[in-house]
Amino acid sequence: MLRVGVNGYGTIGKRVADAVRAQPDMEVVGVAKTRPNFEAEQAVEKGFPLYAAIEDRVEQFDEADIELAGMVEELVAQSDVVVDACPSGIGEQNSELYAEYDTPALYQGGESADFVDTSFNARSNFSDANGADHVRVVSCNTTGLSRLVAPLREEYGIEKVRTTLVRRGGDPAQTGRGPINDITPNPVTLPSHHGPDVNTIFPDLDIDTLGLKVPATLMHMHSVNVTLESEPDADVVRDLLEGESRLFVIPEHFDIDGAGKLKEYAQDVGRPRGDIWENCIWGESVTMEGDDLYLFQAIHQESDVVPENVDAIRAVTNSADADESVRKTNEALGMGI
Amino acid sequence: MLRVGVNGYGTIGKRVADAVRAQPDMEVVGVAKTRPNFEAEQAVEKGFPLYAAIEDRVEQFDEADIELAGMVEELVAQSDVVVDACPSGIGEQNSELYAEYDTPALYQGGESADFVDTSFNARSNFSDANGADHVRVVSCNTTGLSRLVAPLREEYGIEKVRTTLVRRGGDPAQTGRGPINDITPNPVTLPSHHGPDVNTIFPDLDIDTLGLKVPATLMHMHSVNVTLESEPDADVVRDLLEGESRLFVIPEHFDIDGAGKLKEYAQDVGRPRGDIWENCIWGESVTMEGDDLYLFQAIHQESDVVPENVDAIRAVTNSADADESVRKTNEALGMGI
Amino acid sequence: MLRVGVNGYGTIGKRVADAVRAQPDMEVVGVAKTRPNFEAEQAVEKGFPLYAAIEDRVEQFDEADIELAGMVEELVAQSDVVVDACPSGIGEQNSELYAEYDTPALYQGGESADFVDTSFNARSNFSDANGADHVRVVSCNTTGLSRLVAPLREEYGIEKVRTTLVRRGGDPAQTGRGPINDITPNPVTLPSHHGPDVNTIFPDLDIDTLGLKVPATLMHMHSVNVTLESEPDADVVRDLLEGESRLFVIPEHFDIDGAGKLKEYAQDVGRPRGDIWENCIWGESVTMEGDDLYLFQAIHQESDVVPENVDAIRAVTNSADADESVRKTNEALGMGI
Amino acid sequence: MLRVGVNGYGTIGKRVADAVRAQPDMEVVGVAKTRPNFEAEQAVEKGFPLYAAIEDRVEQFDEADIELAGMVEELVAQSDVVVDACPSGIGEQNSELYAEYDTPALYQGGESADFVDTSFNARSNFSDANGADHVRVVSCNTTGLSRLVAPLREEYGIEKVRTTLVRRGGDPAQTGRGPINDITPNPVTLPSHHGPDVNTIFPDLDIDTLGLKVPATLMHMHSVNVTLESEPDADVVRDLLEGESRLFVIPEHFDIDGAGKLKEYAQDVGRPRGDIWENCIWGESVTMEGDDLYLFQAIHQESDVVPENVDAIRAVTNSADADESVRKTNEALGMGI
Ligand SMILES: NC(=O)c1ccc[n+]([C@@H]2O[C@H](COP(=O)([O-])OP(=O)(O)OC[C@H]3O[C@@H](n4cnc5c(N)ncnc54)[C@H](O)[C@@H]3O)[C@@H](O)[C@H]2O)c1
Ligand SMILES: NC(=O)c1ccc[n+]([C@@H]2O[C@H](COP(=O)([O-])OP(=O)(O)OC[C@H]3O[C@@H](n4cnc5c(N)ncnc54)[C@H](O)[C@@H]3O)[C@@H](O)[C@H]2O)c1
Ligand SMILES: NC(=O)c1ccc[n+]([C@@H]2O[C@H](COP(=O)([O-])OP(=O)(O)OC[C@H]3O[C@@H](n4cnc5c(N)ncnc54)[C@H](O)[C@@H]3O)[C@@H](O)[C@H]2O)c1
Ligand SMILES: NC(=O)c1ccc[n+]([C@@H]2O[C@H](COP(=O)([O-])OP(=O)(O)OC[C@H]3O[C@@H](n4cnc5c(N)ncnc54)[C@H](O)[C@@H]3O)[C@@H](O)[C@H]2O)c1
Repeated sequence: MLRVGVNGYGTIGKRVADAVRAQPDMEVVGVAKTRPNFEAEQAVEKGFPLYAAIEDRVEQFDEADIELAGMVEELVAQSDVVVDACPSGIGEQNSELYAEYDTPALYQGGESADFVDTSFNARSNFSDANGADHVRVVSCNTTGLSRLVAPLREEYGIEKVRTTLVRRGGDPAQTGRGPINDITPNPVTLPSHHGPDVNTIFPDLDIDTLGLKVPATLMHMHSVNVTLESEPDADVVRDLLEGESRLFVIPEHFDIDGAGKLKEYAQDVGRPRGDIWENCIWGESVTMEGDDLYLFQAIHQESDVVPENVDAIRAVTNSADADESVRKTNEALGMGI
Repeated sequence: MLRVGVNGYGTIGKRVADAVRAQPDMEVVGVAKTRPNFEAEQAVEKGFPLYAAIEDRVEQFDEADIELAGMVEELVAQSDVVVDACPSGIGEQNSELYAEYDTPALYQGGESADFVDTSFNARSNFSDANGADHVRVVSCNTTGLSRLVAPLREEYGIEKVRTTLVRRGGDPAQTGRGPINDITPNPVTLPSHHGPDVNTIFPDLDIDTLGLKVPATLMHMHSVNVTLESEPDADVVRDLLEGESRLFVIPEHFDIDGAGKLKEYAQDVGRPRGDIWENCIWGESVTMEGDDLYLFQAIHQESDVVPENVDAIRAVTNSADADESVRKTNEALGMGI
Repeated sequence: MLRVGVNGYGTIGKRVADAVRAQPDMEVVGVAKTRPNFEAEQAVEKGFPLYAAIEDRVEQFDEADIELAGMVEELVAQSDVVVDACPSGIGEQNSELYAEYDTPALYQGGESADFVDTSFNARSNFSDANGADHVRVVSCNTTGLSRLVAPLREEYGIEKVRTTLVRRGGDPAQTGRGPINDITPNPVTLPSHHGPDVNTIFPDLDIDTLGLKVPATLMHMHSVNVTLESEPDADVVRDLLEGESRLFVIPEHFDIDGAGKLKEYAQDVGRPRGDIWENCIWGESVTMEGDDLYLFQAIHQESDVVPENVDAIRAVTNSADADESVRKTNEALGMGI
Repeated sequence: MLRVGVNGYGTIGKRVADAVRAQPDMEVVGVAKTRPNFEAEQAVEKGFPLYAAIEDRVEQFDEADIELAGMVEELVAQSDVVVDACPSGIGEQNSELYAEYDTPALYQGGESADFVDTSFNARSNFSDANGADHVRVVSCNTTGLSRLVAPLREEYGIEKVRTTLVRRGGDPAQTGRGPINDITPNPVTLPSHHGPDVNTIFPDLDIDTLGLKVPATLMHMHSVNVTLESEPDADVVRDLLEGESRLFVIPEHFDIDGAGKLKEYAQDVGRPRGDIWENCIWGESVTMEGDDLYLFQAIHQESDVVPENVDAIRAVTNSADADESVRKTNEALGMGI
């Protein structure tokens, strides 16, 4: 059993903890948090030993009557791998702590790619993380793009990718984030940083990305163009994508017109938290114009990186190869919606 | 075992079907639907025999390869009770069908109160529905207000209720509904119809309501004023409310600032579809100024009427009294968040 | 000619500057700003001498090629009155500067009521500001409530006011403000601070307010209940309100259902920036139930305080009495939509 | 003086009427409308003779006390040109009426391109409309794309255009339109109809477009890629665009991050209704990657077609050539923000 600690029990961390617990070859030794809110209470309720991340705040947990198992250092000490899911930038600060205890660590996409040994996407470069100490699971958007690029590249070759990322302004519970009624180029300068981030997975891919923010909370939406090196029929491309375990090609008769109905569907099938770990590609949108492939895909920012974190745990500990790990993860979670 | 049919398998209907199935004394004999979308497919997937509501559309189900068990008439014929959860106004049209087969029927809050024997709220007037043929489970907002009014009235007496209902513009998957960036008095004329609807449960209650629509999808929000006939301490009122099984008084340290975090919490605790069957009352907001009680409550429009429908099934079939039914429903669903 | 300086040239400040310039008895001697954005450029374009509010930032104006007339101290020195429209809290800090130069100053509603001589609403307590050094023009919401309370109180007497303020989350250009899809009690504790703020104008008024924030940017919406000391007909109340120069009672046949159409109307009639200085009361909503008056009013947060600032300038300088000032201001601006 | 009638006095029609009136060589002989709402009242207030478009509704205008000048047929009879700005599809129905009276007519972008002599964009194909009877001024989005394509094509040659149109869900006053919290591919099938619409102006242009709808009301946003036939520096391209009279290249120091601040700026400079007739291109976003040009532009859907309608009036009446007409229109309106 791989002993996994989760540092930062928020949107990503709590999902990773549940997903790790669902694996046959892993257990959660504890989770660390800074504040005694409803998420902290739920950690305890679910039987995850709760560690305080900041000494000064221990008192606050006491006041809220939430039991602590100790300080984060103790959690790191007893973990085979730590998954760091702290807010952007904190992970890099924490890396020294993990190094001190010689505990391999995974970081999330909000961290810089510079201080880690490798960035990670299970479908694309699993083995690069074998035995690494510091691995960054790329962001929700980069994960979504990598999963799509990988099969297209293998099958047809890619001349160039051009993608507009219409990003949700904030997660559903982030009341402090806007915009309320605007569409903002973000970043304004082009191409956006998302392309270079995909290059941490596919170093030689020619990709230009443009980012925007809009007043929506459910999912990101990608308007994708890929100029291929050959000219397959759209049907054949759709079949290829349907064959990928972490791509969900939405059937036409489902009558799903956006992220709202997608999430409704995920809730109906009983997905925990209504999560959608798969890229959601509109089947009808998959189109070829000459060698230009076009499609729309929606990305559930809160959860698509979750199975990737699970796989990365196996990668850094050399406990399975890509195929075996992905199969295990998928089966344990119930991938395939 | 009570044999229950659900006619209209949408937002409300699919939840009622799941809730009925979870009861020890009930089974779902089938559900009826008009269109072969993802919800229809899920009905079949979940093992609910699927009936076509409209003859002409049978073909569409065939084309989508979704198996039908028959026509809605057959469903009604074999049901002890039918729960009608069709769009507003269709229920009244369907009532003749139910009468024809002598099958008692429940309707939802979008229907008129005029053609039914009684309107229904489990906490407030359960026994009025005993043996009735046509019963209307009141709307999400009226359910929410009734649950709150009942204990206050019993305990303190109520001089007058004044409530502003800040309503969500549409459900999360209803992409066709607005407004996008507005706050609209709705209806403009005052008081709104919500007050009279509460009077179908409490005929002699003095209540004035005002309604608005805003660009939000998660929950309704009630800004409540109740002038009581006595002047209890706010703490005591809060304790009273906490004692009600379908009221959830949000603890301060949960740090929940709106519907987004409430739904996040419901998802975290594993509620199916992230549903919140309970009224959600902010504990900190419960305040007395003289004999005026004030508080905020959020109402999950998609699910608070679900346990009420389950209770109404027992009421019309005389298979349990209020206390027993509510206890059974609560236990089967896992009420108490 | 009264020489007026405007310190803080943002949403409120730029409107006050234009409104002051439109008066026959006033001139704008300059405006002060911290950053060289499009608003700074427009100040220069419009011929308002531009002063730098912060020494360190002078360079930034140079880089953007925006000409400065000097530092804010020079502006204060040559002003008969300064209107401070800086972000909340900065006004209080600036008050020492104004005192130093013996320049009477007006502050906006975001400032505390504690450090000023009086709070101000032209309709309600104009003369309290005569000769004062520090006067606070109350916030957009408090201005809106005061204008409504004044005539009702004089005509019928008020037993109690209970109002729910459904507030816009941010102004149209504030992309950083949310929520995107939520309704948040704000503040959660009741009654909200808005009631006490109205009491700075009407000290003995019995008023309880509740506040919420929603994802809209155009206007605030008030759901108003006033328990009167008599029981006039609703028609008579509507006539009374129609007689007030800063209340606009929306005619039914205008077919205006919310803030969107209200602003459209204001743009159509040629209002500068589409501003609506008047409270907008839905005529159809004005209703009496016993001694309870109900109505909806929309408040244009960006502009309703503008004419009040103009009047306050005359009040502190004793250059007109209430009636004369209001008449002058209204005529110069074109009040009455 | 060209005598112009406007049939359909809504979002587009009322702006066209004002713009026509502002021209030295045109006058508005009347406007026609179906309903007596605030817009109808404003038409009369502004001195535009008001004609009823539908016989049966005349009574409604009487009831609202809004004076009519006659029926729409009379308006058509006395007009040299009619601008039809009725809702999509109605224009085509009206075309018979215009033919009957031999009055040349302009239609808006919501109409089909099939029944007209030519589609129109002043910058791109002015003279195609000379002497035509039925001319369609292309939609807001197509106008925006055409203005951008024209100079790039002339200067560098265009290999291919790929553009994602992130469209506003509804206009600010359209409370009935959503989505509230979603991003919807619209249309789902690719490429969208916008590309073919641009081909009505540039028949041989290779262009693929993708469309989405989001919960915003202020402006559309285009994420543009143009593969050029040469590789100019980005600076040079920006200079080229700055030289176009109906393109506004937003300076960096304006600190404008989206449509909210753009509209604020337009209001500040005193534009009627805060309209922005120009494409708004973020200067910082203009980028070359090899032969791929990228940029963001915002399009004010309510007004960018207005100057185009004015020019089209001159085109069909042969009363000026392209350069002269554009110069006149621009000067009369105050183009150049
Ligand atoms: N939310 C998303 O959409 C998303 C998607 C993919 C990747 N990410 C990345 O995942 C990371 C986490 O994001 P999130 O959305 O889960 O954030 P979050 O704010 O929801 O959760 C962060 C958690 O970390 C805790 N925390 C803060 N400081 C801490 C510290 N010093 N030590 C331990 N815990 C601490 C917070 O209490 C919180 O529970 C970021 O790098 C982010 O960029 C987020
Ligand atoms: N959604 C809410 O927030 C909410 C809350 C409380 C009560 N209600 C009430 O519940 C009722 C249903 O609302 P909903 O939101 O579930 O609607 P919905 O549109 O989500 O679902 C209605 C379902 O009925 C089906 N249907 C339509 N016509 C039918 C017919 N003739 N026969 C059988 N099925 C038919 C539709 O296919 C759909 O599946 C309405 O009265 C509504 O007012 C809704
Ligand atoms: N916006 C509203 O809806 C509204 C309504 C009524 C009252 N108010 C109140 O008006 C005041 C101003 O609000 P606003 O919305 O106009 O803010 P704003 O942010 O739009 O404008 C403030 C301006 O002050 C400038 N500024 C910042 N620090 C300064 C300093 N030290 N010296 C000089 N200028 C400085 C900023 O550059 C900006 O131009 C606040 O008290 C606010 O509470 C705002
Ligand atoms: N609003 C936009 O963003 C936009 C942008 C570019 C083009 N357009 C196009 O302009 C046209 C008009 O759109 P709009 O947004 O101005 O619509 P609108 O609904 O705002 O205005 C239409 C007007 O026509 C009137 N009308 C309806 N039926 C009529 C009839 N039979 N005869 C005369 N008048 C009638 C209505 O009362 C209304 O005043 C459509 O083709 C639309 O596609 C709209």
